[in-house]
Order: sequence, then C-alpha cells, then structure tokens
Amino acid sequence: MPGNTIGHLFRLTSFGESHGAAIGGMVDGCPAGLELDLEAVQRELDRRRPGSTPLGTSRNEADRVEFLSGVFEIPSRLEAGMTARNDKRVTLGTPIAFLIRNADAKPSDYDALKDVYRPGHADKTWEDKFGLRDHRGGGRSSARTTAASVVAGAIARQLLATEGVHVHASVLSVGEVSATRTTDVRSLERVWQNAVRCADPDAVPRMTELIERVRAEGDSVGGVVSCFVRGLPVGLGEPVFDKLDADLAKAMLSINAVKGFQIGMGFHASTMRGSEHNKATQGGVLGGISSGEDITFDVAFKPPSTIAKSQLTTDRSGNAVTLEAKGRHDPCVVPRAVPIVEAMTCLVLADHLLRQRSARV
Amino acid sequence: MPGNTIGHLFRLTSFGESHGAAIGGMVDGCPAGLELDLEAVQRELDRRRPGSTPLGTSRNEADRVEFLSGVFEIPSRLEAGMTARNDKRVTLGTPIAFLIRNADAKPSDYDALKDVYRPGHADKTWEDKFGLRDHRGGGRSSARTTAASVVAGAIARQLLATEGVHVHASVLSVGEVSATRTTDVRSLERVWQNAVRCADPDAVPRMTELIERVRAEGDSVGGVVSCFVRGLPVGLGEPVFDKLDADLAKAMLSINAVKGFQIGMGFHASTMRGSEHNKATQGGVLGGISSGEDITFDVAFKPPSTIAKSQLTTDRSGNAVTLEAKGRHDPCVVPRAVPIVEAMTCLVLADHLLRQRSARV
Amino acid sequence: MPGNTIGHLFRLTSFGESHGAAIGGMVDGCPAGLELDLEAVQRELDRRRPGSTPLGTSRNEADRVEFLSGVFEIPSRLEAGMTARNDKRVTLGTPIAFLIRNADAKPSDYDALKDVYRPGHADKTWEDKFGLRDHRGGGRSSARTTAASVVAGAIARQLLATEGVHVHASVLSVGEVSATRTTDVRSLERVWQNAVRCADPDAVPRMTELIERVRAEGDSVGGVVSCFVRGLPVGLGEPVFDKLDADLAKAMLSINAVKGFQIGMGFHASTMRGSEHNKATQGGVLGGISSGEDITFDVAFKPPSTIAKSQLTTDRSGNAVTLEAKGRHDPCVVPRAVPIVEAMTCLVLADHLLRQRSARV
Amino acid sequence: MPGNTIGHLFRLTSFGESHGAAIGGMVDGCPAGLELDLEAVQRELDRRRPGSTPLGTSRNEADRVEFLSGVFEIPSRLEAGMTARNDKRVTLGTPIAFLIRNADAKPSDYDALKDVYRPGHADKTWEDKFGLRDHRGGGRSSARTTAASVVAGAIARQLLATEGVHVHASVLSVGEVSATRTTDVRSLERVWQNAVRCADPDAVPRMTELIERVRAEGDSVGGVVSCFVRGLPVGLGEPVFDKLDADLAKAMLSINAVKGFQIGMGFHASTMRGSEHNKATQGGVLGGISSGEDITFDVAFKPPSTIAKSQLTTDRSGNAVTLEAKGRHDPCVVPRAVPIVEAMTCLVLADHLLRQRSARV
Repeated sequence: MPGNTIGHLFRLTSFGESHGAAIGGMVDGCPAGLELDLEAVQRELDRRRPGSTPLGTSRNEADRVEFLSGVFEIPSRLEAGMTARNDKRVTLGTPIAFLIRNADAKPSDYDALKDVYRPGHADKTWEDKFGLRDHRGGGRSSARTTAASVVAGAIARQLLATEGVHVHASVLSVGEVSATRTTDVRSLERVWQNAVRCADPDAVPRMTELIERVRAEGDSVGGVVSCFVRGLPVGLGEPVFDKLDADLAKAMLSINAVKGFQIGMGFHASTMRGSEHNKATQGGVLGGISSGEDITFDVAFKPPSTIAKSQLTTDRSGNAVTLEAKGRHDPCVVPRAVPIVEAMTCLVLADHLLRQRSARV
Repeated sequence: MPGNTIGHLFRLTSFGESHGAAIGGMVDGCPAGLELDLEAVQRELDRRRPGSTPLGTSRNEADRVEFLSGVFEIPSRLEAGMTARNDKRVTLGTPIAFLIRNADAKPSDYDALKDVYRPGHADKTWEDKFGLRDHRGGGRSSARTTAASVVAGAIARQLLATEGVHVHASVLSVGEVSATRTTDVRSLERVWQNAVRCADPDAVPRMTELIERVRAEGDSVGGVVSCFVRGLPVGLGEPVFDKLDADLAKAMLSINAVKGFQIGMGFHASTMRGSEHNKATQGGVLGGISSGEDITFDVAFKPPSTIAKSQLTTDRSGNAVTLEAKGRHDPCVVPRAVPIVEAMTCLVLADHLLRQRSARV
Repeated sequence: MPGNTIGHLFRLTSFGESHGAAIGGMVDGCPAGLELDLEAVQRELDRRRPGSTPLGTSRNEADRVEFLSGVFEIPSRLEAGMTARNDKRVTLGTPIAFLIRNADAKPSDYDALKDVYRPGHADKTWEDKFGLRDHRGGGRSSARTTAASVVAGAIARQLLATEGVHVHASVLSVGEVSATRTTDVRSLERVWQNAVRCADPDAVPRMTELIERVRAEGDSVGGVVSCFVRGLPVGLGEPVFDKLDADLAKAMLSINAVKGFQIGMGFHASTMRGSEHNKATQGGVLGGISSGEDITFDVAFKPPSTIAKSQLTTDRSGNAVTLEAKGRHDPCVVPRAVPIVEAMTCLVLADHLLRQRSARV
Repeated sequence: MPGNTIGHLFRLTSFGESHGAAIGGMVDGCPAGLELDLEAVQRELDRRRPGSTPLGTSRNEADRVEFLSGVFEIPSRLEAGMTARNDKRVTLGTPIAFLIRNADAKPSDYDALKDVYRPGHADKTWEDKFGLRDHRGGGRSSARTTAASVVAGAIARQLLATEGVHVHASVLSVGEVSATRTTDVRSLERVWQNAVRCADPDAVPRMTELIERVRAEGDSVGGVVSCFVRGLPVGLGEPVFDKLDADLAKAMLSINAVKGFQIGMGFHASTMRGSEHNKATQGGVLGGISSGEDITFDVAFKPPSTIAKSQLTTDRSGNAVTLEAKGRHDPCVVPRAVPIVEAMTCLVLADHLLRQRSARV
C-alpha cells in the first residue's frame, strides 16, 4: 500500500524521481476561497533550492513551480475591472496540482552508481522493496522530493495565516556547535538573512566555520532544527492515535536524514521530577491536543552520507567497491532543512485545523 | 475527524473511557487462518496491569479481555475429534472485537476534580476541544486506554512470529539512572523477572531505589524505554511519507506521557561526522525502509503529572486551587510502559508486513 | 485490506458473526455535545428485528443494544439537580462502542450446513476468500450484521435531525405488486403501522397477500425499497469520486441481497430525451452534490435464497446435495430492509454533512 | 474532505478543470515491475476523445498523455544492449503522475455562462458548495475529467491482464432502442469498429439512426452501457461494506450523467421468486465477493442536459434566462462512456486484486 500521501482533510500526495521528467504533487482539500499568493509559494521553494545558501551544494536548478489546476482568477478583481495578477489566485476547492521540471538533471553523473549501494543511503533497501529502482540521484529516495512538500506547505501556511498561526524553524545546532534557544519572533524571522539559518547571531559564525571546515575535510556533519509555532488555536489534535505531537513526529521522521524528534522538554524530561516538569513548558500540547501555548519541538538530522572521502561499500554482486563521491553534495543539510521542517509542520497543522471543524455539533 | 484508528491493513480502532462501562477495540485486517493463543494475549495484558509490578499504582483490576468476534474453533482440532480448547482459536479474517470491563472503577474518587484542571494533564485541552469531558480518571485521556493497544499488539505479535519477527522493549533509564544497552535477546527476555523491566542487572537496584525514593517524596520521575526488533524482513516501509521509522515515531508519540523518539544514533547523530556515522548503526531502517538489520529506537517518557505533593492549579472558573493527589498513582510509568511500547511496535510492523504484500507485481 | 468501515468523518466500523458472542460496532466521529435519545435508537433496532412484522421470520431475539463508551451524563441535567435519565445521554466526541449479544443463537441448527454451500448464498465465496468460515447462520455474511448499521444509523439520524434532515424509506414493490410513489411525509411516517412497510394503503393488502402466498408455496419473492430525503442542505457531496449519489449507491449495494440502485429517473432516464429529462426530477443531486431538493432513490432486492422448497446444491467435496431449509426464514426481506435502507442513508448523509464543513475557508 | 481519490491500494487521485492548464492524475500503488505499454494507454484515451466517434461532439483535442514519474527504462532491455523503446516502460512502485494539456480550450465560448445556471448541470450546486466555481466548460464538473480515469484505468487493465482478467463494456441501449445481450468476447471486442460501441450488429443501425435524429431535433437521448468481466479470480471483495459490487456501484455512479446501476438480474430480480432466481446468474458476485463466474452489470445514463433547443433557466440573480447551447455537444454520451465504464471497472478490480493479498496468513 502506497505511502505518498500525508494528511486527511488537507492532503498532499507527492510524486517524482530526482532525475525523471518532473517532481510535484497535488494538494487536495484546501478549502475554496483562499486567496493564494503564488509568488510567496515560489519564494519558499527558493529557500530550499540547492544553491540557496553558500554552504550547500552547487547544483543550480531554477525550480520554478507550475500550477496546473485548482486555482482561478479572483472574481472580485475581475468584477472591479482590474486585470488578473499573475501572482494572485483564489482556490476553487478542487485539487491543486503542481509540478517542477527536473531541468538540471545530469543522469550520466550517476551511471557509475547503477550497480553500487552507497553507504548510509537507501539504494539497497529500495531495491529490496521493489525489486528495481531508478538509480539516478537516488530516484525517489532523493531529498529533492521534499520540494513538493515545500510547495504544499507554503499553501498550507497561507491557510494557517488566516487563523493567525505562524511557524518558524531555525537551526539549533550544527555538530557540536549549539545556538541559544529563542522564542523571539523577530529573531526567528531573521534566519533567512544568514546562510546557516540560525536565530542566534553569536552561533552563526561558529556554525559557518564548522561547516566550511568539514567540507574542506571531505566530510559532513549533522545538526538539529528547532521549530516554533505561535498562535495555534486550542483543541487541535485527535487522540488517542492522531495526537498533534504524534502527527508532527511522523511528519518530521518522514524527512530525509531525520533520526529524532522531541517536543517540550523532550528527552530531558525523562530525567526530571514531576514536581519540576509540571512547571516546565509542555511544548504547547497536552494529551495530544494543542493548549494554545507556543509549540516547540526539535528535529535531529544525521550527517549526509555522501562524502568526498573515500568509503568502502558493496555492489549488487556483493563485491567490495571504493566510493569517492563526485558531483555536488551538501556537507550539512540542516540549513536547507529549515524550510522543509516548516513546510511539514504547516501541512500537519492545516490538516488538524480542518479536522477540528467536526469536533462539535 | 476522529483519530482512534491506527494502521491501514492491520488496523486497530480503540474505544472507551477510563471509568465508563468498558474499554476495548477492534482489530480489523488480521489475515484469516492465524492460530491465536488467547491466553498469551491475556498474559501480555497482565503485564500492563496496575499492580503488575510492586513499583506501580495499587489499583487492582482483573482486566480480563473478552473476545466478541472474529475468532473461531480451529477446524483441524474438531475434525481430529479433539475438543475445542478455550485458549486457542483461529482468525476468520473478520473484525476481532474485544472488551475489558471497568470493574474496579471508583468514580466518586474523582468528584472533586470535576471542575479542576490538573497540571500537566489533558483536562483542559480535552474540554477546549470537545466542549465537555468525562472527568472521571481522565476519561478517554487516561493511560488506561492503552490496554486496548496491548491486546491488539499481542495479536499482531502472533502474526509477526509466523514471519520470525521478535520485539523486545526494556527500560533504558529512570531519571538519571541509566542501564547499559544490550542487544542480547536472552537478557531482554528476562525483563519480566524484575519490577523495573530493565535488561541490565546492575541498573535494576539503582532504578528501584530511585523510584522508591521519589515515591516517598510524593514526587514522580521520567525515564526512557528502548525497543529492539530482530528478524524483520527487508523492504518494509512506504516512503515518502509512511516510512517505517515515521510510523514508529507516530505510534510512540501517541502513547501517553511520551515526549521524544529517536532511532539508530538518534539525537547523537546530529553531533557526528558523516565518515563516522556511515559506519554506525542506522537503526535497521534506511530511507524509511527496513534493511533486515536489527531495529533499535528509544522513547522518552516525562514524569507522571499526578503527584502527592501539593500543587497549585486552576479550576474552570479560573480560581486558584491547591491540589494534593489522593488515590493510586504511579511514581514512574516506564516499567508499565514496556509492554505498551512493544504493542505499538507490533501494530506498526504488522501493518507494514501486509502493506509490503502489494509492493511488487 | 478490511472493508468493515463506512464513512470518513462520521464513521461506522462493524463487527460480529451471526452466531458468535455478539455483534456490534463503533461510531467514531460523532461530534461532541449531541444529546442522544438511547431509547429512540433501541426503537429503530426493534423495527429491524426478526419478528418485528408478522410477515418475517419467527426468530425472536431481544436484540438489546448496550452502549460501552462515548456517551455521558448530560451535565446540564445534573447541574440542575435532576437525576440522570437512563435514556438520555450526551456524546463526548469519542468512539461510541455498542454491542448486541447473540442471545437466541441455535448453532446446532446449522451443523448440517457445515460442509454444504447453499445456492445464492455467500458460503462458498467467503470460504474461497478466507480459506475458512464460520458456517453457523452465514457467520459474518448474515444479514444479522445489519443490526449494527441500524444502531449507528439511528445515531446519525439524531445528528441529521439537528439540521432539519429527515429520511423516510418505504416498500415500493413486492414481486409484481407495485405501490404508487409518494412524497407525502405523513404517508411515509405511517409505514410502521403496517407489516409490509408500504406508504400506499391500496398496495398493502395485495403485497401482504403475495408474501403469504409465496410463503405457503415454500418460496420467496424480491422487492424494491424507495428512499426519500427532505431537508438536506445544499452542497453535500465530494466530486469527482465521492459524489453523494455514488456514496449512496455504495451504501445500498453493501446491504445483503441488493442488486440495483437508481436515483431520480434512474434507468428510465436512459430512455428519455434531454428536453424532457431536464424538466424531470434530478433526484436531489446534480453533479454529485445535493441541490436542496428532495432526494429520491430506489433499491432493488433479490428474493431470499433460502427457501423451504428442495433445491440441488453441492458440498465442499463437490457432491450433489438436496437442500430443504429448516428453521426460520423470511419469504420476503423488503419490509425488514426498510429500516436498514434508512440507516445506511443516514450514515452517508451524516458523513457528508461533516465533510462539507471543510469545503470553504 | 476532498473526494478526488478512488481506491485504497491501487489508487487514482485526479485533478484538473476542463479549461484550466491541464487535467491529469496520479496512480499510486501500482506494483513495481509491471511492464507498461504506454501506447496502449494512449489508444484507450483516444477512444474516449471528443471526435473519436462521428456521433459525438466535434471538439477535437489531441489529448496526448504525458507521464511525469513512476516509470523507468526496462532494465532487461538495456542490459541486452537494446535501445529503450518510447512506448514501453516498467513501473517503479512509485506514483505514476500524468497530465493532459487542455490544448483546444476556448474559454471565451463560455463567457456568456458565467452567471447562468444551466438546467440539469452542476453549475449551481458546485457554486453552492464552494462559494465560487470555474464556469468555463463546467470547470471540474465537466466530463472531460474522466480522461484521467481512462488513463489510470488503462494502467489498471495492464495489471489485471497479468492475472488473466478481461473487461468489456458495450452499449446495451440508446433511448428506446435495445441490443441483444451477449457474453461472446469476440463480439464484445468488435465494439470499437462501430460508432455506437454496440456488440449487436442488428442494433447498430437503429441506434445510429436514433442518435442522428435526436441531434437533428436539437435534442439528446440517454442509454445504458453494460459491462462484462471474465477471468476474475475468486475471493475479491471486502464485506461487509466494501463489497465488490458496492465498490463497482460507487465507481459507476461517480461517472457523469449516471443515474442507475444493477448487477446480475438487477431490478428484474425484485420481481422474481427465489426458486427461479437461485438458478439465474448472480452477476459473478455472491455476498459481495467474486465467485469466479463472469461478472455482468448495467449502467444507466441520462440524456445530456446541454441541448440546442432553447430552454428556460435562471441566472445567479434569479432572473429567467433563455438558453440555446452553442458550441460542441454530444447528443448521446453512451458511445463515449464505454471506455470510461471499462476504466472505472478496471480501477475497482485492480484495487481489490491487491486488497485480497492480505486476506490470509
């Protein structure tokens, strides 16, 4: 049974291989009558793009999103005699399909990998599952597929904004370098002004230095992205299984390279006394339902598996192979993961916002 | 939209309030022809029961599970002239409904809490969501509802056993006391022989001592449960959203009091270099798909919110209220959480086992 | 993948075999705060009961529904110092589980059928599907399972009533005897006063006479139930696949013995000209969405397959067997099908009522 | 909650407005390793195309389907040194996204209809539902959206063919002209050789004459499409709600202009005696599960609502408006509905084929 859909009422179904014709998706269930700023969607997509930060891979894709359905001229503009604006549309309540062409694909870069299983990658597990795979750039296991989530998340965000909900992710740590946590929205909004997407100005240079050093060593490094939600209405979340934090955890673990999730005091809570924890932040969720307080959770990313250093691995026939990654690779994914964490968060929250509409008579 | 169902092909829908007539559930999608040992199901339920360990609450419920449908006499036994055995049945492929009567309910214990919101509890969020709540013992927000998960998980486990899959959870830490990790199955099987459900004999007395001390102080303490899966076939998990680790994370976060999940190297991976992490355990999941290696993940529990120490809180009218918990409460939930973690794991794995059946032509 | 659930937001999952311990179900998604008249639910169940009409089978089951969860004392009554009434409860927004014990089961009646496949029955197909079956009274293929639908439908009806929606089914034909169609609500409400559940007083004696004659002949006869819905809000239905009429068709075809569904002018429309049909009733649904007009549709039932007349069939080994039904059987199911058609209709409408809540910003 | 998805394991999600940028869909859940003949898919789409029969509308769209994902070069061909063939691909087990550009759209044709509700159409109900609509050519309520179903159905058909399942639809009646039923597969395969898609050579000229006459009168006419399935394995269908015939009924009623469905003896069964019906065809489904016998069912289509004759209707302000359809319209949809009925049937069967894989241990 396929697993390319997330959400129930506000629902994304995603498609595409990294080096196929296109990637994209469909948002089904976005309520009708939402005025969408399509350029704002594109801007969010740009933030995830390879090359969006000087610290990432140099793969440079235009990554223009094309909308195929579900949006329409805004009637009030037309009736007022105004011309349609290219960047503003209204949702029809029908599926919003979109695609991003894979313009910069260089499949030949990957020919050497056709029969090799890269360490830490999903090459072998995908092949074990399906019996075959598109080996070019990881095929569907590539993090490139998260671009569809970012587009859908940007639509979800515009729905959430009508309810006063705001979602801010930022880099909390890179390797052993940690930032100071903040719940100051202005600081969080400034993360797009630095290449590491960190809200703590003191940590930025140290994180940058670490990433550059790791890159020079032909290595990679992990990190933690923290997410902060303000303005969420009370009552969101559907116990006993579709708790708000359970759905957030799932959405986060579905992001490539994520190995951990914690909310509120998280793992630290396991070392606390009840008398102490009852006074601490609960992370904005109690019993799986939003309390109206700020929501805060952390997402742990492993270091990218593709590194320039030579590594031993095996090919399909079980032979030992030495691998030295060529091409374009991120030494650290967390800066580019920030918009993805935001997008997945927005998708979960938009879905629960609509789900809550049937909670009461 | 309701959230009381988990799983797609192997699916549990759970019902019941802590002090209503009964709790229970329905397992839909268990394949036909599975010989079920019903006493083994009851034994797993017994492990979760209040009073099952000397360290837990003294509430003593018989908690006998009654099966209402979906199971049948084993035809081969009857044909062989053997009498039916009460404890063995075969699944019919139809829904397996079961219930557990709430025999020991003392609703009057909770009258004083009708208008009070307990700190750290879901009293207020449930009321915010639905406009009303069953206040007796937390109603449906009570951890008692996990008994239904344990029953369903025990059925899932028997299905998994036919494929050679084995699931072992154990307590990894209580407060600041940590055990040494083990992947030794014999040690893991021995956790039922000690009250803290820990596989490390050296840690057991220290954990026991900590729990007793915390109880004496009228306080509570958190902990971490670790889970270990051996024998899982390769290929399970449905990217890009229903990854195996994503569904495990969701299932774990749906358990009461859980605040964090990590798989493989987890949060520690965020501090590692790629050259180092590529050689470490990946937790048995790569790209969201099982690799055939052992699966290991950790689940962080906060300390129970209900403590004997007096606490300040508010009632429905916003008045300050001093609360001193009476009645029966756990100073630490992790020992009793061990069978729940196992059950939720079995539910996720059984679902993905069936989902994988449609992966290939 | 199991198929025992109907509905998405207002959802019934049904369980039980005809001669197992119990049948029942769970309604998940009924909004919180609905005051439920439980005796009214029981009254609807009584209408479906064997023995409820002198024309049906003489199997006499008490069929008392027991509610296990999801309903609570009505707070306003308690606060006003009134005692709780047994027959009134308020929904909590949590799953409403219920069961009906199989009190009058006589499994031994069915021993002879253990290895026989009855003509027109699902004995062989269920066994082909699952590899085994509960042969007693058809097991889960028995129409007895519709009792769970009637209970759930009665809850749905009380939700619909808060929006002014009313659902009336009635017998339109028995074999070759047809009633005159009516949209007069008073006539439709009177169907419970006659044994054939027909709104046309002229047709009642002719239908009764036909059923008695067929019974005397050891045979059975089919019929048509018509359903009429008044007061449904505009806008319900979710094209392009979950159209309101598509979901009604599915719900009707899921009822045992149903072989056809038509809405509005139905099959007759296939013989009409557009100029003519555009002026006719559209059945209350246009493009799969309710128009606010009355909804009318028809459901065709085949004659019951179990008849007293001797019939040839085969057993599991392929031997020819002569079958003469003993025990208690309906010569015509349509009178007892009337509450089932109503219940399934209410379930579909309640689900779409909630689904429509997320159609607009 | 959106309704643009059909199927659970083999699943189509459809998108697109008649005169937007494109229509299309995603097939998710098609097993990996299926060799797909893409030209065969295009040929099926051609059969549904406006202009594919001389009896239909003259709107002429190239309707070329473009595949965006989920299919890959066939490895065995490449390894054998053969060049990839454009028309053959293998499924990857990932979503198969496809689109069809709306090349021939003439939105200006529809300006006059912006504020008018056409009789028999969904203009007003869609607007009532969503608060706005894309008025051009019916927007998403247009039958053009069925092109996505035809593409997906053609993929499903290729999966079914690997199991020996064959699906044949044909026109059974046009208005008052009826064909003789046949279960002769050769006759059924010849329907593509005549413009009315009828398997009875005697009925073809009479049907053709009727359609031409109705067109000359500026009117339209309804009809019945019959569907015949051979080779379906036993055991498909998921009682008690997702019965095979229930899901077929839903799929058929989701097709534009359908007003009725019947299986086996259908409505005629309601007039039969049990002794007689038990010997008749059961339509290949017993108790909601396929029996291995041929499946036969009928689908009733109303006459198209858009006719050249002038009609009275209302506009958004409630004013009376006289409407005379210009542009390109079918006087009878049933010939073009034949591939749509086949496609929807294939989608339902492919889904149940996969669902059955988890029926037994």
